[in-house]
Amino acid sequence: MSRYAVGIDLGGTYIKSGVVDPEGCVVARGQVETAADQGKDEVVRRIVQSIQQAPELAGIDPGDVVGVGIGSPGPLDTKKGVIHFAPNLPGWTNLPLAELVEGDLRSALPLASPTAQPPQGGGRGDCGIPIFLENDANAAAYAESWVGAGKGSRAMILLTLGTGIGGGIVLDGEIWHGVADIAGEIGHVVINFDGPVCGCGRQGCLEAYASAPALVRRTEEGLEAGRSSVLRERLANADDEDKARLINDAAEEGDELAREMVQATARYLGIGIINYLNIFNPDTVVLSGGLAKAGPVFWDTLHRTVGTAPFEISREACRVVPAQLGDDTGVIGAAGCAWKRSEIST
Amino acid sequence: MSRYAVGIDLGGTYIKSGVVDPEGCVVARGQVETAADQGKDEVVRRIVQSIQQAPELAGIDPGDVVGVGIGSPGPLDTKKGVIHFAPNLPGWTNLPLAELVEGDLRSALPLASPTAQPPQGGGRGDCGIPIFLENDANAAAYAESWVGAGKGSRAMILLTLGTGIGGGIVLDGEIWHGVADIAGEIGHVVINFDGPVCGCGRQGCLEAYASAPALVRRTEEGLEAGRSSVLRERLANADDEDKARLINDAAEEGDELAREMVQATARYLGIGIINYLNIFNPDTVVLSGGLAKAGPVFWDTLHRTVGTAPFEISREACRVVPAQLGDDTGVIGAAGCAWKRSEIST
Repeated sequence: MSRYAVGIDLGGTYIKSGVVDPEGCVVARGQVETAADQGKDEVVRRIVQSIQQAPELAGIDPGDVVGVGIGSPGPLDTKKGVIHFAPNLPGWTNLPLAELVEGDLRSALPLASPTAQPPQGGGRGDCGIPIFLENDANAAAYAESWVGAGKGSRAMILLTLGTGIGGGIVLDGEIWHGVADIAGEIGHVVINFDGPVCGCGRQGCLEAYASAPALVRRTEEGLEAGRSSVLRERLANADDEDKARLINDAAEEGDELAREMVQATARYLGIGIINYLNIFNPDTVVLSGGLAKAGPVFWDTLHRTVGTAPFEISREACRVVPAQLGDDTGVIGAAGCAWKRSEIST
Repeated sequence: MSRYAVGIDLGGTYIKSGVVDPEGCVVARGQVETAADQGKDEVVRRIVQSIQQAPELAGIDPGDVVGVGIGSPGPLDTKKGVIHFAPNLPGWTNLPLAELVEGDLRSALPLASPTAQPPQGGGRGDCGIPIFLENDANAAAYAESWVGAGKGSRAMILLTLGTGIGGGIVLDGEIWHGVADIAGEIGHVVINFDGPVCGCGRQGCLEAYASAPALVRRTEEGLEAGRSSVLRERLANADDEDKARLINDAAEEGDELAREMVQATARYLGIGIINYLNIFNPDTVVLSGGLAKAGPVFWDTLHRTVGTAPFEISREACRVVPAQLGDDTGVIGAAGCAWKRSEIST
């Protein structure tokens, strides 16, 4: 009998859903708007609906769904299924999401065996399928280590390069959660305590140097200082979220300011990655997010920088590679956590 | 029947040995000079002799020794029992220490059952007791997590503060070795990429800021710049290895320069520790070595700094405490690794 896990990727804008088989293949996908502004009850309703519709989308029997994983932003308690708070979901404070979703599902959905006991860590409902909550960055890390760029790795660090720098740590096939489910704040390691102030309040975090906004800020400072660049016009007319990509494109075209800025970003990131090499001695570092899609100007500089890592054994044991899973990452990771934690994975 | 592990703490100056029971108590101790200048054969002979004499020292039956752990400096291969190289032991390159020790023991020592199969990771001799090699900093971390300041912890980071900054990572009761046994280079995380050059070649490692030599260097720079201090006379007449302690003593006496320098060191260290909080979300950070014996000027500043860590959940989950095991740490850790890896620990 084929069995499946449902993965829910809860974002500030969209709720993505997917039905995922034991090999990590997504056999069906769905997406609805999160509608966070309509309050948390509506968001929960949409999550429940996404779960309910998933089997039909995939053309499978609802009874073949072994568990649901929800990847959510914010610090959260994976064991209790509670979101402490979520920056992009206003009013979500100490929200028992797993219990709420399970409660709604229980009354409505003919999933799984009514006698099945949910395993520890799942929701506590007595006749539903288990709902597992996972931090979205950890879920992404798990996805890449399971079936993506880190497949087969023994120790993998994921860095997600976007507005912030997040990520996750997967050691011997397990997400490292820490003692209070808040490990893996990969972007909030200080690489220069005299550096620019970070969103977290400290100075000189990796995020304050190597996130997309940091790249844009330095480039705009260069323009303000009178540097000549094709970016002067392009950035003036661009949306904020496009600017980092435009800078990378200009760097690949040979624009000197853009090259300098992209290379600086890659060097900062390399310093942070070497720190992780020295701490973890991983075999794989995976980069995802916009910057990871940059071209050779970025990647060559990054590899050159990581090549200066002081411990040869550690340096040679590790590859630094782009993520592979793209838009499916969140859904695969959430489902993968459900597979893993329901202990029925292949 | 009582059973014991023998722990060997191989240092550049002394070989310490101990017989350790399953609760981590040292029931007998020995010590000989390492005599590294007489060549590696002599050092191996002394290690073997230390192991042979251990049961008699403890008044136990040699057959009650279940395994021997050797804590050694240098990058090494714990599975093969090979030391890649050891900075303080000239000529020790790719030395199969576990095999050598086991070979010598096999011909001489009536330990353990002749039919016992050594578990994986021990030496490969066919009638001796298993010999387990472990990095000395990892062994120290294991000791503190087993029966020291980190007893009962789920995630512990040890920082050894001395000439360098080393340490180890113990997660869920296991040393995190990394994929090539070189994880845990705790002192070689850059906290300021514009900072002073570190022994490892990079700029601004934690070690370059918070080791004893870094404290001494900054203090001597202060004296050279004309600062008044009781240290002017004290340091002029002191041996290098006493200087950090003298600075700490002067700080506790209220000497202004000394206070400033000790507080700066504690702040640098705090920055590094917060990085570890953000990465690992540990419940315990243990400090050992000379600086960890400093007084309230150091510790109060350190706790205040760590108190500024950005993630409250992580900050509140973690205590930062001095090590407890003192001179026995290396022996207990080495024996503890033997207990752990021979899988007959209580």
